[in-house]
Amino acid sequence: MNRPAPRDVRTVACVGGGVIGAGWAAGFAARGYDVVVQDIAPDAEGPMRRVVEAAWPSLEAMGLAEGASTDRIRFTTDLAGAVADAGFVQESGPERLDIKRDMYAAMDAAMPNDAVIASSTSGLLVSDIQAGAGNPSRMVLGHPFNPPYLMPLVEVVGGGRTDPAAVDWACAFYRAAGKRPLRMDRETPGHIADRLQQAMWNEIVHMVDAGEATPEQIDESIVHGFGPRLAIMGYCLLFHLAGGKGGMRHFFEHFDPGVSDAWTRLPSPPITSELVEKFVAGCERLQGGRSIQDLNRLRDEALVGFLRHFDKVTGKA
Amino acid sequence: MNRPAPRDVRTVACVGGGVIGAGWAAGFAARGYDVVVQDIAPDAEGPMRRVVEAAWPSLEAMGLAEGASTDRIRFTTDLAGAVADAGFVQESGPERLDIKRDMYAAMDAAMPNDAVIASSTSGLLVSDIQAGAGNPSRMVLGHPFNPPYLMPLVEVVGGGRTDPAAVDWACAFYRAAGKRPLRMDRETPGHIADRLQQAMWNEIVHMVDAGEATPEQIDESIVHGFGPRLAIMGYCLLFHLAGGKGGMRHFFEHFDPGVSDAWTRLPSPPITSELVEKFVAGCERLQGGRSIQDLNRLRDEALVGFLRHFDKVTGKA
Repeated sequence: MNRPAPRDVRTVACVGGGVIGAGWAAGFAARGYDVVVQDIAPDAEGPMRRVVEAAWPSLEAMGLAEGASTDRIRFTTDLAGAVADAGFVQESGPERLDIKRDMYAAMDAAMPNDAVIASSTSGLLVSDIQAGAGNPSRMVLGHPFNPPYLMPLVEVVGGGRTDPAAVDWACAFYRAAGKRPLRMDRETPGHIADRLQQAMWNEIVHMVDAGEATPEQIDESIVHGFGPRLAIMGYCLLFHLAGGKGGMRHFFEHFDPGVSDAWTRLPSPPITSELVEKFVAGCERLQGGRSIQDLNRLRDEALVGFLRHFDKVTGKA
Repeated sequence: MNRPAPRDVRTVACVGGGVIGAGWAAGFAARGYDVVVQDIAPDAEGPMRRVVEAAWPSLEAMGLAEGASTDRIRFTTDLAGAVADAGFVQESGPERLDIKRDMYAAMDAAMPNDAVIASSTSGLLVSDIQAGAGNPSRMVLGHPFNPPYLMPLVEVVGGGRTDPAAVDWACAFYRAAGKRPLRMDRETPGHIADRLQQAMWNEIVHMVDAGEATPEQIDESIVHGFGPRLAIMGYCLLFHLAGGKGGMRHFFEHFDPGVSDAWTRLPSPPITSELVEKFVAGCERLQGGRSIQDLNRLRDEALVGFLRHFDKVTGKA
């Protein structure tokens, strides 16, 4: 196998130069990589560079790596040339299986070096994308969050024919590049985060359809209600804290799913004791020995900073 | 009618001294009100005051009103005495309809002054709570978000027998008290925000049950993925921006609900052109004439501040 160590990668190829591909390019450039952006449309370069320019002040504020420069982003329409010498490929092409399969076959043929290829796909599975490739073992999911140059999370998982060593490698590479890889246990349509978002979005669409809320009321309830907390803690830890001393176990005993099922069109599954134990064990690991008091203090200190910063940015303070 | 002007309220009664009632008390005290906290349990005062003390540094950081002091929070077990002279009552008692009905009858009898009574209830409807009261017209929903002393949103709506003037009054009062009232068009189980949260939570419980994700993976995907954006924009404006120049109309044309329904167990309703128009009109009002570029800049400036502040609070920077 001819694959560089994750920390030794110098050149990253971003295949697909749209908003997501350009965002990746900006983020990699800020971490000091040489970046090649490939897009079949020659006129994709201008919009790509405008995304990078718009992102750069934020990346400067977050702290650039030594030598980082937008000048080290090169544009090409030549797919084979873009990936041939890359230590890593981030593919953000169109969300169509036929197009992706052709792209992966072409990349695979042009890359004798066994470098890992990660797909930004939201809607497809790596198992399907890799089906026609000569060397599917190096193909993984690397799903980012918008804007990819700022948000740390990348969902990582292999397809049915992926070598687990390629998934390990991708996680180590993303970590070296300043991201937070979330290694999934198995492929699922929508991965993890987009499934959660889609459940909420479908409830939103039902509510607007039924006249229960307007789009403005929906957004107000998010931004000034539960949204800011979700920048600090996820629902598992939040509900574990809401359960007080009894934590998640008390939460499940206290909140009857039969009651709360009236609050959404998506019914809860039966709450078995095995399921409660899965949540309890996970929440205790999330709490990590910190006291409820400490976690509430962390929440409030983070919230105060967010609220003040938000008022400043929106011109209200 | 013998009701003070919203800005002339000096004394607020917080009925129920648990975490939510105590949080309301801290918030009202920070805005310079005299606050009476009532709880039938005499030993509720100690925990109530500890919640207030824990909240106070955050409230100081947000900015106290002149003369604001925790010394102006008085505790009593006497319900009638607590509410008799209050300009406004915020009820945060147990989430049981029989208990709330008794409380509302007792408060109503003790309050000749026609002051508004707002319920913090998550799970009950004002129409049910007010059913047995002598003067139901002054009873409204005033649903806060945890922690109530920091989060600005309050969902406000009347029950079937509420005077719309009482709902107007409550919105004006909350605004004077530094909150952001969200006036709902009609009662709905779970109100607005908790319905959205419950849809996501039920998807989470299904995913953990099915082995698609662990609690840790769920929380990681929220906090480092989509969470921070929701402190800045709700899904309607976010997806309107994701639609590019075509906005929400393009978003609905581009994202086939038949595809994204595979991402959650909650199916989408049929996307009719009337429904699309409701979203488009709402999103255009949310955009409010600002350019996509300006909104993306606002998003990034807010995100950079949040991410840096979060790293500082969690000791990572």
